[in-house]
Amino acid sequence: MSQATTNVMQSALKLFYAPIEDELKRAEQTLISELRNESPFVNELLEYGGQLGGKRLRPALLLLTAKAAGEVTPSHYTLAAVVEMIHTATLVHDDVLDEAAMRRHLATVNARWNNETSVLLGDYLFTHAFYLASTLETTFGCRRIGQSTNIVCEGELRQIGNRGNHALSEAEYFEIIDGKTAELCACACHLGAHYANADDAVVASMERYGRLLGMAFQIADDLLDLLGDESQTGKSLGTDLDKQKPTLPIIHTYQTLDGNERQEFVGLLESEDLQRHVAILEWVNRCQGLEYARKTAIEFTEQAREQLNCLKPSACRDVLSDITEFVVARSL
Amino acid sequence: MSQATTNVMQSALKLFYAPIEDELKRAEQTLISELRNESPFVNELLEYGGQLGGKRLRPALLLLTAKAAGEVTPSHYTLAAVVEMIHTATLVHDDVLDEAAMRRHLATVNARWNNETSVLLGDYLFTHAFYLASTLETTFGCRRIGQSTNIVCEGELRQIGNRGNHALSEAEYFEIIDGKTAELCACACHLGAHYANADDAVVASMERYGRLLGMAFQIADDLLDLLGDESQTGKSLGTDLDKQKPTLPIIHTYQTLDGNERQEFVGLLESEDLQRHVAILEWVNRCQGLEYARKTAIEFTEQAREQLNCLKPSACRDVLSDITEFVVARSL
Repeated sequence: MSQATTNVMQSALKLFYAPIEDELKRAEQTLISELRNESPFVNELLEYGGQLGGKRLRPALLLLTAKAAGEVTPSHYTLAAVVEMIHTATLVHDDVLDEAAMRRHLATVNARWNNETSVLLGDYLFTHAFYLASTLETTFGCRRIGQSTNIVCEGELRQIGNRGNHALSEAEYFEIIDGKTAELCACACHLGAHYANADDAVVASMERYGRLLGMAFQIADDLLDLLGDESQTGKSLGTDLDKQKPTLPIIHTYQTLDGNERQEFVGLLESEDLQRHVAILEWVNRCQGLEYARKTAIEFTEQAREQLNCLKPSACRDVLSDITEFVVARSL
Repeated sequence: MSQATTNVMQSALKLFYAPIEDELKRAEQTLISELRNESPFVNELLEYGGQLGGKRLRPALLLLTAKAAGEVTPSHYTLAAVVEMIHTATLVHDDVLDEAAMRRHLATVNARWNNETSVLLGDYLFTHAFYLASTLETTFGCRRIGQSTNIVCEGELRQIGNRGNHALSEAEYFEIIDGKTAELCACACHLGAHYANADDAVVASMERYGRLLGMAFQIADDLLDLLGDESQTGKSLGTDLDKQKPTLPIIHTYQTLDGNERQEFVGLLESEDLQRHVAILEWVNRCQGLEYARKTAIEFTEQAREQLNCLKPSACRDVLSDITEFVVARSL
């Protein structure tokens, strides 16, 4: 993907947000005012952290779902800020885990300060998000946010537990990304529809939409990590291979190969040769691992779009549909 | 403190818990059953993490306060498990920050596995605690837990921001430890009294008791870190000096010295000589820094005990009083 393509993508995303422009601004104000702190050091960290999240995809999903399924209420602005704070917390901690140096063309918190500052900043964001959720009238939001973030952590831990497990099945891989990525998208869409007083069936469909979109998003992200160019994506790449994290193109290649070829492929995955990336991609290409992963991501987006049929036609419904194409287009 | 003394202390703590033995067992069962997970890797981590907290001081404070101020209810068992989970999460993350290898005579999670596992295990515990708090009827518990844990993180971040700031005032130091340590004790006692339906004045006194106890506890902990013996306390020590964290004996020594002597002392604090510990202690002794810190800790415990006057006489009230002496005795 070229720099020009990236810019087109960013503009496309802005266009997507047009039907919720005012709502997104109000959620952003909540986020900014919640992330002020009297201590200059803490304040500087929070401002910096606030820039890392970037796309505001999760707040946008929450607000789009709300508007498409009913009405946007004050609770939605609070919850939009909450999901973005949670997402930023996981990014800050991910960058410690991945030992990443760059995120959205910025130095990561661990690179600019250090690991302990990153750990505590992530904790600060998590706990502030929980506090903010608890300012709503009922425990519903807290419960869903608590549960979802817990599932995210479980997914990330299971991913660590399966590092170097080249025989990981596709089903297990799906379970892991369902937890670590799809869960928070499902949560955002669920909360959006629930607090808009949508029917139970619509709420359930919106949650499924978010989950299926999140699955597609993560597969596309894995493809970007394997193929992308750091100067264009603005973040450290190739960390999945370095960390021996199984991803769909690699899993598919492993499952397609057998005997000596499989052994040779595993040898490359486990080798410490810095040049192995190219050789791994050759195997992946031979087994059509990239095409397979793209096809799978597209299937998830098709299923996601089906969930939107229960909504009345609206600009927001159209955007929810278009976003499914956008998340996969990133990795084409 | 000798090994024999440590054992006496541990037994004393068990005695303290006698009036809430059954309640503490029930809270422990909640904790254990909440920390089970289907993934064997995650389950192993949670079991291991469950052993790190150890003294169960915060659940005990919550239950003692409840029983001394009213009646223990099902909400208290949930909240006792919540505060212990939060405390364990902060310990697991602290051990990453301190690069500590030992905790309660066990290898820390980062030493046994690695930093990223520790970060995620801490996150798992935080998020599970929030979820558990949200299962209560109202948002009250969530709100207080969210707020308190956020203040804890802020205190820890401010501590990092003041690393190597030898001119930190005593007042600023108190603000930092109020956040990073006293807040969670205040929260435990507040929730204990609130959910026991105590009068507002009693609830406020119990919160103050917890805060003052926590202040004394942290000063004693700082003294232990400066003076203790790893084989006896069961955790990595001397990390405050290594990390240039200002603590009360050091702050007092700095404030007492002036001119060339102060410069010489700062030179030692900033030196990378592994033997500097002894020389630093000589300066601290000359300025009676240890006595000053002990005296200050004792003053906090006296103020803590005064808060108990609003309670009717009971075995639990006596224990709350005795605990104030216990936390300081650790460092004598």
